[in-house]
Amino acid sequence: MAVLKQDIIEAHKRIIPYIHRTPVFTSKSINEMFGCSFYFKCENFQKIGAFKIRGGMNASLLLPASKLQKGLATHSSGNHAQAIALAAKLLNTRAYIVMPNNSPNVKVNAVKGYGAEITFCNPTLRAREDTMDEVIKRTGAEFIHPFNDERIIAGQATCAKELIEEINGLDVIIAPVGGGGLLSGTALSAKYFGNDINVFAGEPVGAADAILSFKTGKIESAPYINTIADGLLTTLADITLKIIRENVTDIFTVSEEEIIDAMRLIYERMKIVVEPSSAVPFAAILKHINQFKGKHIGVIISGGNVDLNSFKNWFV
Amino acid sequence: MAVLKQDIIEAHKRIIPYIHRTPVFTSKSINEMFGCSFYFKCENFQKIGAFKIRGGMNASLLLPASKLQKGLATHSSGNHAQAIALAAKLLNTRAYIVMPNNSPNVKVNAVKGYGAEITFCNPTLRAREDTMDEVIKRTGAEFIHPFNDERIIAGQATCAKELIEEINGLDVIIAPVGGGGLLSGTALSAKYFGNDINVFAGEPVGAADAILSFKTGKIESAPYINTIADGLLTTLADITLKIIRENVTDIFTVSEEEIIDAMRLIYERMKIVVEPSSAVPFAAILKHINQFKGKHIGVIISGGNVDLNSFKNWFV
Repeated sequence: MAVLKQDIIEAHKRIIPYIHRTPVFTSKSINEMFGCSFYFKCENFQKIGAFKIRGGMNASLLLPASKLQKGLATHSSGNHAQAIALAAKLLNTRAYIVMPNNSPNVKVNAVKGYGAEITFCNPTLRAREDTMDEVIKRTGAEFIHPFNDERIIAGQATCAKELIEEINGLDVIIAPVGGGGLLSGTALSAKYFGNDINVFAGEPVGAADAILSFKTGKIESAPYINTIADGLLTTLADITLKIIRENVTDIFTVSEEEIIDAMRLIYERMKIVVEPSSAVPFAAILKHINQFKGKHIGVIISGGNVDLNSFKNWFV
Repeated sequence: MAVLKQDIIEAHKRIIPYIHRTPVFTSKSINEMFGCSFYFKCENFQKIGAFKIRGGMNASLLLPASKLQKGLATHSSGNHAQAIALAAKLLNTRAYIVMPNNSPNVKVNAVKGYGAEITFCNPTLRAREDTMDEVIKRTGAEFIHPFNDERIIAGQATCAKELIEEINGLDVIIAPVGGGGLLSGTALSAKYFGNDINVFAGEPVGAADAILSFKTGKIESAPYINTIADGLLTTLADITLKIIRENVTDIFTVSEEEIIDAMRLIYERMKIVVEPSSAVPFAAILKHINQFKGKHIGVIISGGNVDLNSFKNWFV
């Protein structure tokens, strides 16, 4: 079951009434600094503050009414939880979110704010899945995976589709990679709607599983986990790995220092708030800037949900 | 010599090729939180990161060529210095900026980055003025005051003009007040281009001179100076005081805590970087929210030039 061009076109039509058409920002000073033309697709301004609403909305809208009325369910402590919670609210159904009991209050409150029912579990993958199974058994709600799902991928693909339609002549698009939903969608939209666009990904050294999986063709774990890019901790899965292997040119890893430097440039020059995961692709381009001189580069700014109290750890 | 409607219309035509048309941002969550409709005019996305380029550009473009070729001069450690430096660069002339020798490196470098010649002086008003006089004597450059100048006021007025033309039915516009150039221009544009818009201003308690001058009709000093809103430290002068007394409904003062709370909301909900001075008007509305329930409120976000290392002092 592949994600076809028509799937993405239809996903876009389906979700347009529910999402923001986010702006594409440019910065003359950044372009002059590095000798290329950057186009930042600002999903930090998207509803829920991240691109995840695109996939969440598409998957939800594809459910038959009889299924939808039983509700939506997922386990996540991040932006996907908010996406499913908001999708349920917009479609007048229930959201059942399983969250680890050590989730930050700010994230719990955001999900609660959309009226979702939260079930807390121990902070292990096993506990998450077991609790999720119980919730689904009890409610009959539809489980919506955060990335390994063609409906989600088609939804996330609409972000790059908008960018490609707005900016002519892109040579490159780069996205962050966690589970690979956004990257898969980006690569497919580049193939279907672009004209010879090379797609790259940025990944933290401290969560470097995708680069390994990309090379070996198997789902690999990261050698170690230690990064402020908390949206990129998950590994790829079968559907995203296949799409990425077939359609992505390369994956670059970046250090924590490189992430912070890129984030600082974005804050200082573009005056926008982005989460660390969003600075990873830009950091990756800057690290390999000689390869990209003179190019027209689309950069997916995936989200802007940060705890401002973390600033003191980053900007010193 | 008043600032007429036609002066603002012509200023706008004059500067349009050199400035950004900045976007007006809205936030559903902020509107729901407070029960009114906010329209944030985002001059943090303006060239040099602040509205000051509007006035600086207008004043510079009004100079005869013979005068312009001798250069532009001002004393400032803030956004006005960058505005004059960029205006000079864009018009192929020299900028001579007098800066206190304790100015932060980031500001000195920004001005240098536009190719301006910097003359350092001791950090007193007297030393600034004396040094400025010497520079002007030596160069013949035109001194451009940061706010007490009709050309500057007409330029700053174009910001509210754009907001009024874009958003129908505004009841209120609020701007920050330092020297009063932006506030004067805002009030005049509301009168000339708006339909019964009340103009307010926000001022820090720790630099509360304008509210006193507004009441007494004389240029007053602040009882004390202690605020993170470093763009609002100057007092009004004769031209701005007169315009503000005649055209502004009220000035509200806000505490440092209220400024930080407002800034936090802007960062968290709107995902934009603003300088503390820019959060002052929003803080003022929130402090008097009962007076503004149900209203359509334009808020001038004056700029986004912050030292990220200050975040650790604000967001804790």
